[in-house]
Amino acid sequence: MPIKQTPYVFSHKGLFYGEMHFVIESIEQFCYNKCRTDWSDEMLIRIETESEIPIYTQLTNQIIEGIAKGSLKSGDALPSVRAFAADLGVNMHTVNKSYHELEKKGIIQIVPKSGAVISHYDSIDDSVMNRISDQLRPYIAEALVLGLDKEKLLELVSSLVSDIKTK
Amino acid sequence: MPIKQTPYVFSHKGLFYGEMHFVIESIEQFCYNKCRTDWSDEMLIRIETESEIPIYTQLTNQIIEGIAKGSLKSGDALPSVRAFAADLGVNMHTVNKSYHELEKKGIIQIVPKSGAVISHYDSIDDSVMNRISDQLRPYIAEALVLGLDKEKLLELVSSLVSDIKTK
Repeated sequence: MPIKQTPYVFSHKGLFYGEMHFVIESIEQFCYNKCRTDWSDEMLIRIETESEIPIYTQLTNQIIEGIAKGSLKSGDALPSVRAFAADLGVNMHTVNKSYHELEKKGIIQIVPKSGAVISHYDSIDDSVMNRISDQLRPYIAEALVLGLDKEKLLELVSSLVSDIKTK
Repeated sequence: MPIKQTPYVFSHKGLFYGEMHFVIESIEQFCYNKCRTDWSDEMLIRIETESEIPIYTQLTNQIIEGIAKGSLKSGDALPSVRAFAADLGVNMHTVNKSYHELEKKGIIQIVPKSGAVISHYDSIDDSVMNRISDQLRPYIAEALVLGLDKEKLLELVSSLVSDIKTK
């Protein structure tokens, strides 16, 4: 399966720099570097073009994981739609759709001139809590149907939390 | 918000009988009864036409919850696409899409003549376990980003399990 992957460097000042861009199992393979001193954690974005998961959802999920892991922090700006689309080798509409999904979830704010900025959370309100609950519910039900018991399910969630935070 | 809801009675012999059919907040409101003696638990299907969740997904999720709860059991047959669509007041393609989604998940088997029959699970294999993990992962990450810690998340999952099994 061809995997497009681009390690991104996001700075704490809200800038980002594409570090490398390569497409595995394809003729197209190149890399470029930009030198900066103020970058923080590196963040790897993987787009699996043959996945059943839409590309914008893959991007959304990976940005969310980047924030959960701490590679991206509140106040950080995401790349411009144009730059991100070019570096990932995807359509601008795809990045735009992902950003709007993140905005709808309250994870980023789209600020004129500054672009897409990661929001800050102190506490979780009821409407967000209900949304999370509604989102998880069908997958929890499916897991129960397919044979996971409560204990195994809690183990799975626990290991997912650890994996997201460290990987 | 108009809610279409149809309580269904699924029998253990694989037959189903629409018990009532009514549409709230609408002029159309009627009910019908069929008398049978061999039905088991009643199952309520709610279709929210104004929800952002596609109708076929709402149906899929509720069938899964019905199985998780025990209202539907392995070996039970779901209603025919035509009958279910008519009773719910939805398009046949919608029910068909839901059934194919359930089949893809391995939750039902579409058997010639018998229709859609709920599968039986003894143990969970790795590929199913990985799929459940992949499905849960983005929502777990989102919950972490929005401020839930591991402990709260486990509490939420635990309460969802109880709610699905009893509600």
